[in-house]
Amino acid sequence: MAETETICFDMYGTLCDTSSVTAALSAELDAPESVVAEIDATWRSKQLQYSYQRGLMGAYEPFQSVTRDALGFALDQWNVDADAATEDALIDAYDRLDPYPDAVDTLRRLSDAGHTVTVLSNGNPAMLDALAENAGLAPELDDVISADEVATFKPNPAVYENAADRTDTAVSSCRLVSGNAWDVAGAANAGLRTAWVNRANDPFERLGVEPDLEVGGLAGVADHLD
Amino acid sequence: MAETETICFDMYGTLCDTSSVTAALSAELDAPESVVAEIDATWRSKQLQYSYQRGLMGAYEPFQSVTRDALGFALDQWNVDADAATEDALIDAYDRLDPYPDAVDTLRRLSDAGHTVTVLSNGNPAMLDALAENAGLAPELDDVISADEVATFKPNPAVYENAADRTDTAVSSCRLVSGNAWDVAGAANAGLRTAWVNRANDPFERLGVEPDLEVGGLAGVADHLD
Repeated sequence: MAETETICFDMYGTLCDTSSVTAALSAELDAPESVVAEIDATWRSKQLQYSYQRGLMGAYEPFQSVTRDALGFALDQWNVDADAATEDALIDAYDRLDPYPDAVDTLRRLSDAGHTVTVLSNGNPAMLDALAENAGLAPELDDVISADEVATFKPNPAVYENAADRTDTAVSSCRLVSGNAWDVAGAANAGLRTAWVNRANDPFERLGVEPDLEVGGLAGVADHLD
Repeated sequence: MAETETICFDMYGTLCDTSSVTAALSAELDAPESVVAEIDATWRSKQLQYSYQRGLMGAYEPFQSVTRDALGFALDQWNVDADAATEDALIDAYDRLDPYPDAVDTLRRLSDAGHTVTVLSNGNPAMLDALAENAGLAPELDDVISADEVATFKPNPAVYENAADRTDTAVSSCRLVSGNAWDVAGAANAGLRTAWVNRANDPFERLGVEPDLEVGGLAGVADHLD
């Protein structure tokens, strides 16, 4: 049998599709579709920016707070009012994202092949546990590891190193699987193996490292490693 | 006379207008205007993202390399070819940005009022020195301080603290002036006074702090502090 690995899957944009949030925005906001689309893009972009910036500032807050701050900024930026109940409903949408169609089967195939299979995400534990349950991923996972445990965000090496510590695996025997190229670069920078799920045939981010494996969908990871 | 401060000005988007780069892209690239506009937006956005991500990864490279990597990504993303000479010409555009019309006068007024006046930027020293010279800012500056001296990027507190060290000023007597809200937040997080130059009447970034002073243009800073 081939060497087994600890395979850490990113959650948002890798196992689950963040575009599910678009439907919630359309349903909840009283705004034209073109404005909803701008809020959607600004929200996701600010959510990522705030996580990088807070990580670099040493001013950690749980990802749900960061997500709420990013939503508040996006609504302000596009001059759309939302009451607290509406904002809560939108934040809750992150607990009910759709899994990608091949997510459950990929986790199961890798688990059956003897690999340890975990989530490794910037999401805080409450967000990740709710989503893993709702998306039907929980039964297939050996563990759910959050950046919250080290109070910073990917791509800080401490987040990836913590996944190795927590699973009693050498960093060099852990692999990060992510749909986010910057996340793959962060993991490679920390010494992990990587697999980039490049669904949109994008160029890789220019951050000084390359992915070990590039696939078009999650099933491609299992095709290589099961 | 009122208390004097060390007033640290951000360069890109604060003293100088990064939109000057748009003209260089239009002149140098063989692509429709709509594609040039997308490359322009992607380039600036990736330049910032790569600086945050490299800062958080602990994988510092000088800002000119980061700027070149971001340009390479933007050209790839939008399927536009550029030879090495064209890329060099575009990178050189960052050495010849236009200063905002009130930049020189604002620096002079603050200097005349007894304040120490510096640049504090993520740009590496060669970029900053060339731009300060070309934009006519150099004669008005007491110092040009680069994030390169501490090998990371704003909004890491080390960058702001280094400005205090270098000018022999207490952190609490330094003030960052920036057109970038995230930069103002980073400085406030590090304990500096701040002034946000909010030219586009944007909402402030939601990063847990607020600016001490908000003005519509650089002259507003001198109006308050000279």
